[in-house]
Amino acid sequence: MGSLAAAIAVGLAALGAGVGNGMIVSRTVEGIARQPELKSQLQTTMFIGVGLVEAMPIIAVVIALLVM
Amino acid sequence: MGSLAAAIAVGLAALGAGVGNGMIVSRTVEGIARQPELKSQLQTTMFIGVGLVEAMPIIAVVIALLVM
Amino acid sequence: MGSLAAAIAVGLAALGAGVGNGMIVSRTVEGIARQPELKSQLQTTMFIGVGLVEAMPIIAVVIALLVM
Amino acid sequence: MGSLAAAIAVGLAALGAGVGNGMIVSRTVEGIARQPELKSQLQTTMFIGVGLVEAMPIIAVVIALLVM
Amino acid sequence: MGSLAAAIAVGLAALGAGVGNGMIVSRTVEGIARQPELKSQLQTTMFIGVGLVEAMPIIAVVIALLVM
Amino acid sequence: MGSLAAAIAVGLAALGAGVGNGMIVSRTVEGIARQPELKSQLQTTMFIGVGLVEAMPIIAVVIALLVM
Amino acid sequence: MGSLAAAIAVGLAALGAGVGNGMIVSRTVEGIARQPELKSQLQTTMFIGVGLVEAMPIIAVVIALLVM
Amino acid sequence: MGSLAAAIAVGLAALGAGVGNGMIVSRTVEGIARQPELKSQLQTTMFIGVGLVEAMPIIAVVIALLVM
Amino acid sequence: MGSLAAAIAVGLAALGAGVGNGMIVSRTVEGIARQPELKSQLQTTMFIGVGLVEAMPIIAVVIALLVM
Amino acid sequence: MGSLAAAIAVGLAALGAGVGNGMIVSRTVEGIARQPELKSQLQTTMFIGVGLVEAMPIIAVVIALLVM
Amino acid sequence: MGSLAAAIAVGLAALGAGVGNGMIVSRTVEGIARQPELKSQLQTTMFIGVGLVEAMPIIAVVIALLVM
Amino acid sequence: MGSLAAAIAVGLAALGAGVGNGMIVSRTVEGIARQPELKSQLQTTMFIGVGLVEAMPIIAVVIALLVM
Amino acid sequence: MGSLAAAIAVGLAALGAGVGNGMIVSRTVEGIARQPELKSQLQTTMFIGVGLVEAMPIIAVVIALLVM
Amino acid sequence: MGSLAAAIAVGLAALGAGVGNGMIVSRTVEGIARQPELKSQLQTTMFIGVGLVEAMPIIAVVIALLVM
Repeated sequence: MGSLAAAIAVGLAALGAGVGNGMIVSRTVEGIARQPELKSQLQTTMFIGVGLVEAMPIIAVVIALLVM
Repeated sequence: MGSLAAAIAVGLAALGAGVGNGMIVSRTVEGIARQPELKSQLQTTMFIGVGLVEAMPIIAVVIALLVM
Repeated sequence: MGSLAAAIAVGLAALGAGVGNGMIVSRTVEGIARQPELKSQLQTTMFIGVGLVEAMPIIAVVIALLVM
Repeated sequence: MGSLAAAIAVGLAALGAGVGNGMIVSRTVEGIARQPELKSQLQTTMFIGVGLVEAMPIIAVVIALLVM
Repeated sequence: MGSLAAAIAVGLAALGAGVGNGMIVSRTVEGIARQPELKSQLQTTMFIGVGLVEAMPIIAVVIALLVM
Repeated sequence: MGSLAAAIAVGLAALGAGVGNGMIVSRTVEGIARQPELKSQLQTTMFIGVGLVEAMPIIAVVIALLVM
Repeated sequence: MGSLAAAIAVGLAALGAGVGNGMIVSRTVEGIARQPELKSQLQTTMFIGVGLVEAMPIIAVVIALLVM
Repeated sequence: MGSLAAAIAVGLAALGAGVGNGMIVSRTVEGIARQPELKSQLQTTMFIGVGLVEAMPIIAVVIALLVM
Repeated sequence: MGSLAAAIAVGLAALGAGVGNGMIVSRTVEGIARQPELKSQLQTTMFIGVGLVEAMPIIAVVIALLVM
Repeated sequence: MGSLAAAIAVGLAALGAGVGNGMIVSRTVEGIARQPELKSQLQTTMFIGVGLVEAMPIIAVVIALLVM
Repeated sequence: MGSLAAAIAVGLAALGAGVGNGMIVSRTVEGIARQPELKSQLQTTMFIGVGLVEAMPIIAVVIALLVM
Repeated sequence: MGSLAAAIAVGLAALGAGVGNGMIVSRTVEGIARQPELKSQLQTTMFIGVGLVEAMPIIAVVIALLVM
Repeated sequence: MGSLAAAIAVGLAALGAGVGNGMIVSRTVEGIARQPELKSQLQTTMFIGVGLVEAMPIIAVVIALLVM
Repeated sequence: MGSLAAAIAVGLAALGAGVGNGMIVSRTVEGIARQPELKSQLQTTMFIGVGLVEAMPIIAVVIALLVM
């Protein structure tokens, strides 16, 4: 039961992180393509956003490791 | 049963946080790309919003730790 | 059975709060990007709305704590 | 069985309230961003609408407390 | 079995009422933002519509109370 | 088994009535916001439409009462 | 088993009738808001369409009564 | 088993007929609102289309009656 | 088992036929509303298309009759 | 088990054929409404496309007959 | 078990082929309606595309025949 | 169990290949309809893309053959 | 159990790879149709993107082979 | 149970990575097609984004290997 629980937790976390990061990075690429002079600022915000999105899945991974 | 419950709780929480943060940050990146002079104000609002979005998943994590 | 019930209640609550808050905050960021002089008014309305959205999930959390 | 029933009732109620309130408040924020002089009138309607949306989930919470 | 049935009935009712009321009130707020002089007429129609939408969920609540 | 059947019938009926009425009333509110002089005619059609939409869920409620 | 079958039949019928009638009536309201002089003709077509949409759910109700 | 089968058959048939007829009639109402002089021709095509859509659900009803 | 199989087959067939025919007829009505002089040609194509769409569900009905 | 398998196979095939043919024929009707002089050419392509779409469901029917 | 497996394989294959071919042929018909002089070239590409789409479902049919 | 596994693997693979190839080929046909002089270049890219899309389903077929 | 696990892993991987590659290649074809002089650059990016998308499904295939 | 858990984890991870990378790379190809002079900058951001998206699925793979 522990391995199945870990798989569900980390699978949903990877799905959520993929969709969330995909939205952020694709918008950043679109923004750079329109205004290349803002590249560093947009990337800074992108890194902050990705870090915030990744926070919860990483906790999910920790819990998955705990229940294994 | 406890480990499965923890996995479901933290998995749904990570999915919700990913989608919610993804919407907020991608709109912020889009807003900065159009008006770079508002970067600090937009990021402030973004941090507040992300904090509010993260509140409920973190409670879910706490409950997941409790039921384990 | 109690732990599984608590996980379902708090997981759905976190999903609903994530989507609801995501819509409100992303629109607020978009509104500030267009009219920065209305920042305080928009944030006030945002806080009220987030508070109203969070009310029901918090009750769900309380019930989840009760059934554990 | 009672705790699972309470969890399903309050979870669906929180999901419905999150989506419904999210639609109302995001439109209100958008309306204020376009016409700031109507802020009080829009907020009044928003409060009425949120109250009407919250009515049914609160009854769901009461029933969830009853079946526990 | 009775408590589970009551939870399903009142949960679906709350979900339906949330979505239905959300559509009506958000359109009303949008209408007031465009034409503030029609506020009373739009609110009157909104109250009638919300009342009609709430009719069926309230019956669902009554039936949920009966099967408990 | 009878209580579960009644809950499913009345729950789906409430969901259908909520979505159907929501579409009709929100369009009516939008129509009144554009042409206030047609308010009575639009409301008449709205009442007829809501009555027709409510017909089937009410029959569902009757059947739910029968199978209880 | 008979009561569950009746509930499924009449529940799906109410859902279908709600969506179908909602589409027809909302378009009729929209049409009247644009051309009020065609009100009687549009309502005639609306009544015919609603009658045709209701035909199948009513048969479903009859069958639901038969299997009870 | 026979009653459950009949309920599934007639329920899906009613759902399909509701969606199909809803699309046809709503488009017809929209067409009449734009060109009232074509009312009879559009209604003729509508009746033919509704008849063709209803053909398969009616066969489903017959089969539902057979398996009962 | 045979009656359940027949119900699934004819139910999915009716759902598919309803959606397919609904798309074809609604487009035909829209086409006639724009160019009434092409009515006979559009209806001819509509009848051919409906006949082709109905072919597979009718085979499904035959198989449903066979497995009963 | 054989009859249930045949029902699933032919039901999914009818659903796929209905959606596929519906897309092709509705586009053809739309094309003829815009350019009536290309009617024969568009219908030829439509017949080829429908034949190609129908190929796989017919094989599914054959297999359904085999497993019965 | 073999017949059920064959039905699932060939049913999903028919669904995929129907949707895929439907997209390709409907775009081809739309393209011919706009530029009839490219009919042969578009049909050539269409045949190639349909052949590539059909490749995998046919393999699925072969495997379905193997597991029967 | 082996035959059911093979059916699921090859069925999902056929569904994925159908949707993926459908998107690629329909865009290619649309591109040729707009610029016929690029036909060979677009078809070359199309063949490469289809080959890359087909790679994974073919591996799925191989694994399906292995588990049978 | 091993064969079923392998089928699920490789089936989901093929579905993900099909959708992901479909998006990338169809956009590349669209880009070449608009600017043929960038063909080599776009194809280079396409190959890199497809390679990155394929990385995870190939790992899934390896794991599927391991659990068999 | 271990093999099934590994399959679910790596399957969901591959699905998430496919969708996420597909969004990022397709936007990058679109951006290069509009502004070829920004190719290196866009690709740099693309590589960073793909790396961030891949992080979580790779952890999922590691956990899948652990539970096997």
